Amino acid sequence: MTLTASVVGASGFAGGELLRLLAGHPEFDLEQATSRSATRKTVGHAHPNLRGLDLRFTDPADLDSVDVLFAATPHGVSMERIDDFRDAADTVVDLSADFRLNTEDQYDEWYDGHERPELLADATYALPELNREELAGADLIASGGCNATATMLGLLPLADADLLGSQRPVVDVKVGSSEGGAGGGAAASHAERSGVVRPYAPTSHRHEAEIEQFVGRVAFTVHAVDMVRGASATCHVFPDERVTTGDLWGAFRERYEDEPFVRLVSGGGGVYRYPEPKSVAGTNYAEVGFELDPRNGRIVVFSAIDNVMKGSAGQAVHAANVALGIEETAGLEFQGLHPVGAP
Amino acid sequence: MTLTASVVGASGFAGGELLRLLAGHPEFDLEQATSRSATRKTVGHAHPNLRGLDLRFTDPADLDSVDVLFAATPHGVSMERIDDFRDAADTVVDLSADFRLNTEDQYDEWYDGHERPELLADATYALPELNREELAGADLIASGGCNATATMLGLLPLADADLLGSQRPVVDVKVGSSEGGAGGGAAASHAERSGVVRPYAPTSHRHEAEIEQFVGRVAFTVHAVDMVRGASATCHVFPDERVTTGDLWGAFRERYEDEPFVRLVSGGGGVYRYPEPKSVAGTNYAEVGFELDPRNGRIVVFSAIDNVMKGSAGQAVHAANVALGIEETAGLEFQGLHPVGAP
Amino acid sequence: MTLTASVVGASGFAGGELLRLLAGHPEFDLEQATSRSATRKTVGHAHPNLRGLDLRFTDPADLDSVDVLFAATPHGVSMERIDDFRDAADTVVDLSADFRLNTEDQYDEWYDGHERPELLADATYALPELNREELAGADLIASGGCNATATMLGLLPLADADLLGSQRPVVDVKVGSSEGGAGGGAAASHAERSGVVRPYAPTSHRHEAEIEQFVGRVAFTVHAVDMVRGASATCHVFPDERVTTGDLWGAFRERYEDEPFVRLVSGGGGVYRYPEPKSVAGTNYAEVGFELDPRNGRIVVFSAIDNVMKGSAGQAVHAANVALGIEETAGLEFQGLHPVGAP
Amino acid sequence: MTLTASVVGASGFAGGELLRLLAGHPEFDLEQATSRSATRKTVGHAHPNLRGLDLRFTDPADLDSVDVLFAATPHGVSMERIDDFRDAADTVVDLSADFRLNTEDQYDEWYDGHERPELLADATYALPELNREELAGADLIASGGCNATATMLGLLPLADADLLGSQRPVVDVKVGSSEGGAGGGAAASHAERSGVVRPYAPTSHRHEAEIEQFVGRVAFTVHAVDMVRGASATCHVFPDERVTTGDLWGAFRERYEDEPFVRLVSGGGGVYRYPEPKSVAGTNYAEVGFELDPRNGRIVVFSAIDNVMKGSAGQAVHAANVALGIEETAGLEFQGLHPVGAP
Repeated sequence: MTLTASVVGASGFAGGELLRLLAGHPEFDLEQATSRSATRKTVGHAHPNLRGLDLRFTDPADLDSVDVLFAATPHGVSMERIDDFRDAADTVVDLSADFRLNTEDQYDEWYDGHERPELLADATYALPELNREELAGADLIASGGCNATATMLGLLPLADADLLGSQRPVVDVKVGSSEGGAGGGAAASHAERSGVVRPYAPTSHRHEAEIEQFVGRVAFTVHAVDMVRGASATCHVFPDERVTTGDLWGAFRERYEDEPFVRLVSGGGGVYRYPEPKSVAGTNYAEVGFELDPRNGRIVVFSAIDNVMKGSAGQAVHAANVALGIEETAGLEFQGLHPVGAP
Repeated sequence: MTLTASVVGASGFAGGELLRLLAGHPEFDLEQATSRSATRKTVGHAHPNLRGLDLRFTDPADLDSVDVLFAATPHGVSMERIDDFRDAADTVVDLSADFRLNTEDQYDEWYDGHERPELLADATYALPELNREELAGADLIASGGCNATATMLGLLPLADADLLGSQRPVVDVKVGSSEGGAGGGAAASHAERSGVVRPYAPTSHRHEAEIEQFVGRVAFTVHAVDMVRGASATCHVFPDERVTTGDLWGAFRERYEDEPFVRLVSGGGGVYRYPEPKSVAGTNYAEVGFELDPRNGRIVVFSAIDNVMKGSAGQAVHAANVALGIEETAGLEFQGLHPVGAP
Repeated sequence: MTLTASVVGASGFAGGELLRLLAGHPEFDLEQATSRSATRKTVGHAHPNLRGLDLRFTDPADLDSVDVLFAATPHGVSMERIDDFRDAADTVVDLSADFRLNTEDQYDEWYDGHERPELLADATYALPELNREELAGADLIASGGCNATATMLGLLPLADADLLGSQRPVVDVKVGSSEGGAGGGAAASHAERSGVVRPYAPTSHRHEAEIEQFVGRVAFTVHAVDMVRGASATCHVFPDERVTTGDLWGAFRERYEDEPFVRLVSGGGGVYRYPEPKSVAGTNYAEVGFELDPRNGRIVVFSAIDNVMKGSAGQAVHAANVALGIEETAGLEFQGLHPVGAP
Repeated sequence: MTLTASVVGASGFAGGELLRLLAGHPEFDLEQATSRSATRKTVGHAHPNLRGLDLRFTDPADLDSVDVLFAATPHGVSMERIDDFRDAADTVVDLSADFRLNTEDQYDEWYDGHERPELLADATYALPELNREELAGADLIASGGCNATATMLGLLPLADADLLGSQRPVVDVKVGSSEGGAGGGAAASHAERSGVVRPYAPTSHRHEAEIEQFVGRVAFTVHAVDMVRGASATCHVFPDERVTTGDLWGAFRERYEDEPFVRLVSGGGGVYRYPEPKSVAGTNYAEVGFELDPRNGRIVVFSAIDNVMKGSAGQAVHAANVALGIEETAGLEFQGLHPVGAP
């Protein structure tokens, strides 16, 4: 039983990654890849790693009927075209922020005017580690945002163990240039962006809304650093009571011991003692770890993902696997590379 | 029919890549990973991408009996231990330079004193695109060197078409830091090596010997540039007679049309018009392309590989697949990533 | 009136920068450069940018008599050799941590056993923006640490304006590979360190002691990122009362309006809206800026320096200028470059 | 006697560097900085390193009368506005390619239709190491191209010593992203350009014309690599007769012993044995070196510059110094940094 799948917005970074994943997925047949800007060109024209794939971009206006449609379009497009998408496919997985928030009020607080607010309640947010059960059978899926994913994977074990404290956690995220998408103006040019430690969203990054919705308020700041792929969240948490390292190991192990895509990495010897985006580049894995700071009564949690994968296309495929009852890890087995540079 | 396989020297970069490939290979069972320096540690200690693998390094003195043994040890070790290796396995694939040259004279010209020169004639060099036929059934395989591989893949079509000319081709290779291996002194430190365009082997790089053995003499120079993985060979060739772009397309297509791991990339639009190491990072693919320079009667050939994969571990697994009659591409299907930074 | 100056430990990164600064300083004559490892070699051997300088490293055991001696030796060396240093020079500027803390108790809390604790009270800490007055005429100067410098420059205006709040500030610092010095083991190799976002000191970094001594307690974490030079401190501060952006501009302007090496950078258009290490690479400048987060009652302060300059050699020369009554900016006028890569 | 100077096209990379150099130049007063796109903004808006400079961009249509005008406009602008420029200033230094070639025929072979061909013969090309004498008193100066500068500095000693041979030299140049200028489309975005070894001009780069004009024909290829500043030319030369390393040292020393901005770097120990762009980043210096390849009868010459400095703005100021009888090195004394990343 193979399912057919399409990607709308397939010439962007997340779209290209979806093509790669679906082309290698044992349960999906990749049917269609649409792109407004690259219609009729081969997918290898936009994505050099996919030169071996015999597929051309088609006009997004003409959607084939498929089992699953992945929408990797810029924010705002999915809410406009959602009826077309649902007409074309039984299951729609949207990678944009359009359907991630539960209510129109929340949406209006962070974005500008939703065109289809009545659908917000129908959509299921996808961070399988958070809400796997709700995803089973879901037909409109809003795949979680990259920075929110990294942050929530770090905070969930503490939230479950009631260790977040009454003081708002501070979250300092470092991201690669692929978060800015395939276009990019002067600030994204190599000469201006190389080697940066650049305050990218000092405050008020929109992914804060997703974190607030599921975990609670955080004081959130995003920096751009010199890598292409990767999002690394460092969460500074001040629990109300004294905790031990053993407590923390307990909390993190309990939360993640059965998770196929989460690895606990904390201390030990060697070069790679804590989570790093490099170690998961190209994969759907998240590394999560922590260190206790007794002097300051602080838990420092580190969480690292590949923003294009676990933070976007991989998360979407993972969610589709769960929604459709497919083996969760199908098509997502790549283990990553060592050594690897700025991924 | 699953075959058992071991990796000797598994804590180095090529060794780690072999572990990754063999663990995901449909026809091999990974049996043993040896390391002198990391004995008893998990393979994930050295290779963070392999944290999910339940395997510990063992002492290289104790080799299990397996079907295939891959030796990823520093140059000089294999010739010392070759009897042990062959006792332990029917098929030995050596990734070092120890058995790449045909004769003791050649070896002495480029290296220092071979300990088992009588075996040189028994070993089969492995660049499947060059000598696939000889590899079938081979039991002592010398996997080709990274820079030689990149260069020969660029030159072979011209050699076959008798277009190399009487003037020696100039080959200018750019390599990443992984070529220096997992150790590295002051010159390899991040602060000293970042952002370099550094003459690494201005002349007399030993891979020249392999190229000379199979294709002929070249004037060879290697630069270190700022990437971790990748080898890119630019070959400047001066044919004796005038050629057309059509002639060149003919020569390259004829040579490579049936090759599963070679992609011709030459011109066209978009960002990626010529071979680039980024486009094949993490994969066993080579990109090969060219441009004609009529003003100077020159053919410029570009060839890009991942030195740890097509230039080392991937090549070795490819050769083992051929030698043992397995599907050539088995275990080597990863397509690479886009976008990707300094891989 | 030209003063003579020497550099002990001149083959390291800070030492090389001192040589460059002193060679170009209008009031200093560079007399001697010592190095244990490179004795008798030219300074250009270690520092390629100084190939034009006709000077050779000498044995650190033989110190000439000079007016000012700069010690850029590893931590622990200065306390052993401090009598030699003071015999050789009227003014000693130590770039290590040996004399930065005021009391033996403090020292023992963060380091291991001081050999000359009685001198701690004699030494003057050097962050001219903090204690310029005390530096005038000082003869034993302990130049401030790079990460402490970046952090304190960010926090001082808030401390002065009593805006630090009762909740401990969280400080998340990102640093380049030059902080690890010129040696470097496996973790510092280019292949392992390229492209990292690596928790480098999750907690308990020793520079915390200096910050605590002068500004108060902070919850401090240091990450290694992919640059060679640079330290960027992001300080998350929670004032007890509501503040406005106008209040903050007032506090920062008042603190820094007469400072020759501090630039306020906050908002505005263009690519460079906030402090970035790139913008001050190679210079003695610090960029400091902030953004208010009303949603979370938070002030986010950004502070960026070149760790080898304002965080080390430049700071030391600045301090010597102040101590000796020389024009503060003498020898430190370089404005930095644009564009510049990973500096 | 201070001279007044202006920069037209001052918001670009070369223009910003001119501002920096002129603001720190002992003999020039920086009068005006024009920019079409940034009129009325501070120069620090475009160039963060110049935030301390109290100067705003003005409209390029309104040129003040000055002693020297530097034009850092895109190719084609100077030939259109040359009369305005010469009306405004006695000495015009043009950084574009508009006046570099001697004849209209040459120009038409490489570019498209010159608007003021009659001026080509009046202009003096500026590579001071090539034609210092002609520059004295010149009033229309065409500053040499970056890649041509790097290449010619490598080849001139061999040309003078008649060692270029009858076989065309092969020149393989590696350049940083600043060569593409401050704009940049998709190919220049950080995500697409990071970590590249990208054939940038496989053949027919226009700087070939300058090299041909002064040194002779070369087979020329340019690669983009991962740095922002820097151009490194590797020249493979096949002399007709056998030469010794001693002959080469003789040739290079004789050519450059009195040159203030050329350093011979060839062999020796340590990390930096050959010319590297890193070692001269931010400076007007060129490093030149070589190695003999007896096996192939080849001389490999390495030449490294900072393309924005010695390849553009620094070269232009150097030329103005020579033309106006100012000390050659005035304003160009910066020695560069060590360590430094991808500059």
